[in-house]
Amino acid sequence: MRKKHGGNIYQIARHLGIPPESILDFSASINPLGFSPRFKKNVSSLDETILNYPDLEAHAFINALAAYHKLPRENFAAGNGSTEFIYLLPEIIRPKSVLIVAPTFTEYEHSYQRAKGLVFYCNTLEKDGFSLQTNNVLDALKRGYGMVYLCNPGSPSGALSSKQAMKEIITAAGKKGTQVILDETFMDFTEEHSLKHEVTAYDNLYILRSMTKFFALPGLRIGYVISHGKNIEKIQERQQPWSINAVAQHAGTVSLQDTAYIQKTIQYINEARQELAGELKRFSCLHVFSSFTNFLLIKLLDSSPKTTAELQDALLKKGILIRTCEDFQGLSDKFFRVAVKKKNENKRLAAELKKILSGTAS
Amino acid sequence: MRKKHGGNIYQIARHLGIPPESILDFSASINPLGFSPRFKKNVSSLDETILNYPDLEAHAFINALAAYHKLPRENFAAGNGSTEFIYLLPEIIRPKSVLIVAPTFTEYEHSYQRAKGLVFYCNTLEKDGFSLQTNNVLDALKRGYGMVYLCNPGSPSGALSSKQAMKEIITAAGKKGTQVILDETFMDFTEEHSLKHEVTAYDNLYILRSMTKFFALPGLRIGYVISHGKNIEKIQERQQPWSINAVAQHAGTVSLQDTAYIQKTIQYINEARQELAGELKRFSCLHVFSSFTNFLLIKLLDSSPKTTAELQDALLKKGILIRTCEDFQGLSDKFFRVAVKKKNENKRLAAELKKILSGTAS
Repeated sequence: MRKKHGGNIYQIARHLGIPPESILDFSASINPLGFSPRFKKNVSSLDETILNYPDLEAHAFINALAAYHKLPRENFAAGNGSTEFIYLLPEIIRPKSVLIVAPTFTEYEHSYQRAKGLVFYCNTLEKDGFSLQTNNVLDALKRGYGMVYLCNPGSPSGALSSKQAMKEIITAAGKKGTQVILDETFMDFTEEHSLKHEVTAYDNLYILRSMTKFFALPGLRIGYVISHGKNIEKIQERQQPWSINAVAQHAGTVSLQDTAYIQKTIQYINEARQELAGELKRFSCLHVFSSFTNFLLIKLLDSSPKTTAELQDALLKKGILIRTCEDFQGLSDKFFRVAVKKKNENKRLAAELKKILSGTAS
Repeated sequence: MRKKHGGNIYQIARHLGIPPESILDFSASINPLGFSPRFKKNVSSLDETILNYPDLEAHAFINALAAYHKLPRENFAAGNGSTEFIYLLPEIIRPKSVLIVAPTFTEYEHSYQRAKGLVFYCNTLEKDGFSLQTNNVLDALKRGYGMVYLCNPGSPSGALSSKQAMKEIITAAGKKGTQVILDETFMDFTEEHSLKHEVTAYDNLYILRSMTKFFALPGLRIGYVISHGKNIEKIQERQQPWSINAVAQHAGTVSLQDTAYIQKTIQYINEARQELAGELKRFSCLHVFSSFTNFLLIKLLDSSPKTTAELQDALLKKGILIRTCEDFQGLSDKFFRVAVKKKNENKRLAAELKKILSGTAS
């Protein structure tokens, strides 16, 4: 059986016997403005791209990454979504044990195919808004792990850690020979906090990035690693040929060059997130956590007349899908996550929530 | 460094400083009619497909495969090109040693990341037109291997083995506990010879298929395995989520249903191959091997005034790319392979070859 994931509208639609396009999907945090208009203009002229094997070196895409991030080409490896690297890195690093700073993506543990007893968690806490406490992580790292997984901004919390905190952690990890997998899949929304310019200074740092969320390209599978050149070489040696497909390479290249769209997205999401958070904070039975991304983590307080499961069911009857969070290490069945979507869609979510939580839903 | 592959027009074009679309690519064996017109009609309306995560279960695509092959859904797993499975199967089967029936795809050995001393070859021979001799393979299998790789029709030979021969080999392998990886990536051209309906009878049989060649979709990466249901379950447990992208699933589904295009392709390739083989057989310095696919293996005889490297260079000056075969186990620098392309393109190849081999090339 597959593990649980957000954005699983096809399975849900089959289960409910409805068309997938009738679902308003708040469970996946995809840019509500859609993908780059520059790429959209090219979608109908993809024939040659599809008719040839993908460029084995993803040359144009890596050039575009280098320009976007202002880093040399040698610091990038491209793949079939960041998932490819979540699965590939443990095969390269072969850690004896791993530390996961939680709550976070469940895929990290799933990709580590060894005895469960060798996966350890360092939980961030609700009282801290699930933001990372540097000393707790430094303490945990003293025990010595092959790898540590961090996600910044955090998912599903949306919390952001400072660059300074991250550098302390990476330095301490380095002294223990611990490789740091830093997932920055939501960093495009707040790029100035990225650790990307540190990959030459720290050779134990692997930054995972994805074009799924900010660039709204989940269907194409576009991920990449930013790391020290010698790590990138090892990764490329182990990658399958053609792992990133040709349409993905093309879409990635064009989207990264679309600066107007990038600016517009950052502004829109900031506004829309503030609006949605403001609306949801009015509910006395909800706690809304601070977020630097395009989603919000929410806790249903004891005063809520519904459980998250009941809430999810009631919303689904209105065609709205949310992500319940009971399967995240360190969370419980009190938590759920919603994407920041278009402003009118966010209003619809708030209105339906109001009806359900006040008991006036039809 | 990446290994050598056909269809690598982007690297070649960068090397030569010319645009990739100016290359007439005979090195990759892609259907010259292009991809399905049914899919082509949909290319401009892929927005929703791209904006959502791929269906984790590839439900519609697997339904289409089941209908096309007249087999139950449980016998299929879909992935990011058949390459995904070439790399995944050794991770699942974990063989102590492998036997490769050669010459064949170099990727089989490359995917087997263990000591080179544990890879053994059983070479088919030039005197047999590189067609598989059952007794030779049966003899080799007696030594007992974890896995054996077979490709039918063979690549780069184009030779076809009978179903009866394959069954004998699979039975003998089964008695030794040997898992059979049977690559049928070129079988769509001669589907009646597929072993696909035997996957319930032989639980040591894994058939690899791809939509790259016949369906002309190399850029999208679409592959699948046909095997016993219990093998498929193990594969699916180990696959990364979303490994086959959403556009690939859509293209695969629609193309498999395009029966007019499928029929037209089979007829066109048969005619074009016979025409091209006929043209090339007129050259006294070439030997053309029999092929059941959309490519031809050719040997440059001692009477040739050029080496294959010289031939490749001279053709490239005319914008034509061929695949030299010196890197295939069991072949030498005397061999090259050409795709069967559009009839007028094939004529152009023959005409340029004539000029070069007669020494009248400009």
